[in-house]
Amino acid sequence: MVVQYDGTGYCGFQRQPELPTIQREIEQALTRLLGGPTTIIGAGRTDAGVHALGQTLTFDTDNPIPAKRVVTALNGLLPDAISAIQALEVPGEFHARYHAAGKLYGYRILNRELPSPFMVRYSWHLPAELDVGAMQQAAEGLLGEHDFVAFSSSGSSVRDTVRTLRRLDVQREGELVEFRAEANGFLYMMVRRLVGALVDVGCGRLGVEDVEAIRESRDRCRVITVAPPQGLSLIKVIY
Amino acid sequence: MVVQYDGTGYCGFQRQPELPTIQREIEQALTRLLGGPTTIIGAGRTDAGVHALGQTLTFDTDNPIPAKRVVTALNGLLPDAISAIQALEVPGEFHARYHAAGKLYGYRILNRELPSPFMVRYSWHLPAELDVGAMQQAAEGLLGEHDFVAFSSSGSSVRDTVRTLRRLDVQREGELVEFRAEANGFLYMMVRRLVGALVDVGCGRLGVEDVEAIRESRDRCRVITVAPPQGLSLIKVIY
Repeated sequence: MVVQYDGTGYCGFQRQPELPTIQREIEQALTRLLGGPTTIIGAGRTDAGVHALGQTLTFDTDNPIPAKRVVTALNGLLPDAISAIQALEVPGEFHARYHAAGKLYGYRILNRELPSPFMVRYSWHLPAELDVGAMQQAAEGLLGEHDFVAFSSSGSSVRDTVRTLRRLDVQREGELVEFRAEANGFLYMMVRRLVGALVDVGCGRLGVEDVEAIRESRDRCRVITVAPPQGLSLIKVIY
Repeated sequence: MVVQYDGTGYCGFQRQPELPTIQREIEQALTRLLGGPTTIIGAGRTDAGVHALGQTLTFDTDNPIPAKRVVTALNGLLPDAISAIQALEVPGEFHARYHAAGKLYGYRILNRELPSPFMVRYSWHLPAELDVGAMQQAAEGLLGEHDFVAFSSSGSSVRDTVRTLRRLDVQREGELVEFRAEANGFLYMMVRRLVGALVDVGCGRLGVEDVEAIRESRDRCRVITVAPPQGLSLIKVIY
């Protein structure tokens, strides 16, 4: 199943006792719809405040309800901040996370002096002028297969920190600066740390060549700025 | 001063004891900024859940702070859902409401089967197919100077219910149906009742000619559908 959500009011995707999470809401709705306790496996664990335009998840059920009807019925049970957009029957061995070939994330900066009440949940408000050309150059230096440990946060048990960054675009669209990052997988907080480092370049706090040097250092302490969660969206999971 | 706000979490613009309102938030922030109790006069009283891209308000102060600095300083004190975007010194007799020559409102419908977590605060989700051509025709029949009492809700003490509707556009933009309504003034709930009647036309519940007949009837009970507040925004106040 593919779902969208506004992560603003939630403590992230993953189920946590007593806390409002996306997983808990979806499991509660599915349990009600399907008439039996249902647990889901998501393709990725988005953090608190992070959104999804296309998060993928799998679940098992004995209920013979057609997949297509699950979408409409579930949307009647889910809170407004979460919508199912597609459901498909898949072979039992399909796993939303292990079978993902990659993920595409988007990040949005509102780059103007005045804040916007309509963008505050969906963007990082940065009044400082950004040199998008320099950011693009720095982004290019990160593409390819590398150890990205310097752009990850501790708190994850992942051992292999090599990932292939296939795409890291930065573009200005009027008052917005939009990022697209695609990789075979991302380390914990990696997109927000990549965006943070590129913003440091855009503001002149880092030089273009510093970003590649940070990656090569494999030193987590060298990345200073971490972009806040509300600008980030999981756009799609690639299979 | 011109302000923007996301009306979702508020009980409308106008101050009400014990309730969160836009006016209360702005008055609290101004009182803090200017160092003395400050009350504001808004150009219009948007309802609970209604947004503003350009609400105008006036206030008096003895504080010599330049108008331009009020915007930045106030945005540091206001909640994220409210932003000041412009401030100007005006003659003491200027009144935000009495001197308004008109108002422009926008209304947005998400016209597709699936709901969107990102549009739910800012649009009316209507899965039914809408005949926008018929809605446009019906809208044209409402333009001009008329008694619009049939499109107002009781609960207002206004005696003169004649208004000049200068513009009532309906346009499809992909999955959105967008309205623009401009008049020298609007009666209580008038935009939402006009939109509701046009949606009735778009769904075939009313014929094109019925809308003009409702206006001519001067009968409040004849308009059945009232568009919900979250699709509505006060775009600007015209002076």
